Amino acid sequence: MATETQRRTVLAVSLNPAVDVTYEVSRLRVGEVHRVGQVRELPGGKAVNVARVLAMLGETVTVAGPAGGRNGQWLGGALERLGIEHRLVPIAAQTRRTVAVVDQDGAATGLWEPGPTVSAAEWSALRREIAGLAGGHDVVVLAGSLPPGAPPDAYAQLTADAHRAGRPVIVDADDAALLAALAAEPEIVKPNREELARVTRIGDDGWPAVIEAAQVLRRAGAGATVASCGAEGMVAVTGDGVFIAQPPEAVRGNPTGAGDAAVAALARGLARGLGWERSLREAVALAAASVLAPTAGAFSSDHYRRWRSEVVVQELAQ
Amino acid sequence: MATETQRRTVLAVSLNPAVDVTYEVSRLRVGEVHRVGQVRELPGGKAVNVARVLAMLGETVTVAGPAGGRNGQWLGGALERLGIEHRLVPIAAQTRRTVAVVDQDGAATGLWEPGPTVSAAEWSALRREIAGLAGGHDVVVLAGSLPPGAPPDAYAQLTADAHRAGRPVIVDADDAALLAALAAEPEIVKPNREELARVTRIGDDGWPAVIEAAQVLRRAGAGATVASCGAEGMVAVTGDGVFIAQPPEAVRGNPTGAGDAAVAALARGLARGLGWERSLREAVALAAASVLAPTAGAFSSDHYRRWRSEVVVQELAQ
Repeated sequence: MATETQRRTVLAVSLNPAVDVTYEVSRLRVGEVHRVGQVRELPGGKAVNVARVLAMLGETVTVAGPAGGRNGQWLGGALERLGIEHRLVPIAAQTRRTVAVVDQDGAATGLWEPGPTVSAAEWSALRREIAGLAGGHDVVVLAGSLPPGAPPDAYAQLTADAHRAGRPVIVDADDAALLAALAAEPEIVKPNREELARVTRIGDDGWPAVIEAAQVLRRAGAGATVASCGAEGMVAVTGDGVFIAQPPEAVRGNPTGAGDAAVAALARGLARGLGWERSLREAVALAAASVLAPTAGAFSSDHYRRWRSEVVVQELAQ
Repeated sequence: MATETQRRTVLAVSLNPAVDVTYEVSRLRVGEVHRVGQVRELPGGKAVNVARVLAMLGETVTVAGPAGGRNGQWLGGALERLGIEHRLVPIAAQTRRTVAVVDQDGAATGLWEPGPTVSAAEWSALRREIAGLAGGHDVVVLAGSLPPGAPPDAYAQLTADAHRAGRPVIVDADDAALLAALAAEPEIVKPNREELARVTRIGDDGWPAVIEAAQVLRRAGAGATVASCGAEGMVAVTGDGVFIAQPPEAVRGNPTGAGDAAVAALARGLARGLGWERSLREAVALAAASVLAPTAGAFSSDHYRRWRSEVVVQELAQ
């Protein structure tokens, strides 16, 4: 029993983490020079955002991934200051920065540096580290883009490793990284509606089309497809049925990180065996509450607590 | 004689140095996310650019200034990799980054982080370091903005220190920092035409207005005022006469750093006693050649060599 109680909830794997930088300017104008009012820096990347949300929920979470250069050093220190456990594997190239320029009109302009190239030897070390960590966690989350140099089927390799350790996997990735992951049969994939339409080439207008596209990914290997549909909620095509979960009200704010909040809730649901109805309720409430937070990886606790009982989850007759 | 031969040419004082970051994007659009194609990082700030130009000219130069955090650490390492001697004084706050987003249409959008605050104790340490270094150099260059926390008359204090060590000073600063410096009678001030018009409130349309404004600064304490007028060249109001120096051709390109290249030439001219006619010729040729370089602190050697003999310097009858 000792090992059971020591087990942590989620291993959040970020193969391309970032220093998320926010620049506040009065108004961004192309071709002009702007004095930045405030500079904020936060650890970023989808899986890191998932980890930050889980840490806010009081869950034990470990971040694993590559870290290089002074940005990589900063990342480790910043995770420690947030009280988030990490196992960062050193790489030679510099961890990227993702700059969001936010102006008074609310426009957010993103400047995403390319990720650092990961060498074959670094990938081997990373994979070994992640495989070794998987068994000590209830759920493994693989989220975000692949850095240059990582194998195209990186998520399939890591999913297979996690399965060998007996752990379920959630994949949140785009395009080729998502498609390649399906071969290893991850328990959940969580594309958003646009990503889902892109990889399946099925339109995203209306629930039937989203459900049809989600079915395609399930037939291709996913245990379940959970599609996030912005303010309209989420669709889950699972072995236990098809569900639509809708938020109690339309929320305006910062949509960046809403999908990561949803993944955090799904990972927690999987770790605790909460079942689809409750997991989706939590995921939609947490995603909506994250839209009210100014940065990704955070959420409004008050709204989350209120909305988790107000989300409507509907199981479709098959 | 030993000390004479060991003396270095220029002490370049940068009170607010920066990591100059260039992001290449295909086209910058406000409110959208951009994947940055290439990221370049260079040591920056006006005095650092002056030092880089002098180093390219084969001159011995020392950079002095505050450096803090991981950006400050990077700055020291990057200067070393460029073969530039430095005496950076550690401060608690982080050295700033200045981001230029350059798109295929050639538009450069600047995002300048605020400078780190320098505490009173840090300012004392900086001033002591710079005063101690001045005597070991032929000329002291004070260029760029003052960081938060530095005294408003920082350049006057440093000019007085250099004069006590028997060394001439060139100041390239804006607004209040420039005006405050005049009390200590620096040998040369080098505003650009717009800065000159702003501090003197005299219009900048046509040579007579620029000369009149330059005279105002000379009467207020400057040994000479050299005003850079972009593609039209430079005006020098000096104790030896008034000069107009014009480039042989209009140059299109990147004007950032052209003023710094001019300051480098003026500092070299002062160190070597080249006289106004030759110094201005060099300054205009070097500024024009720097417009052809993609980054500040660099210049096209070929064009510099050609243009230095083609610049027209005219002494006005008084």
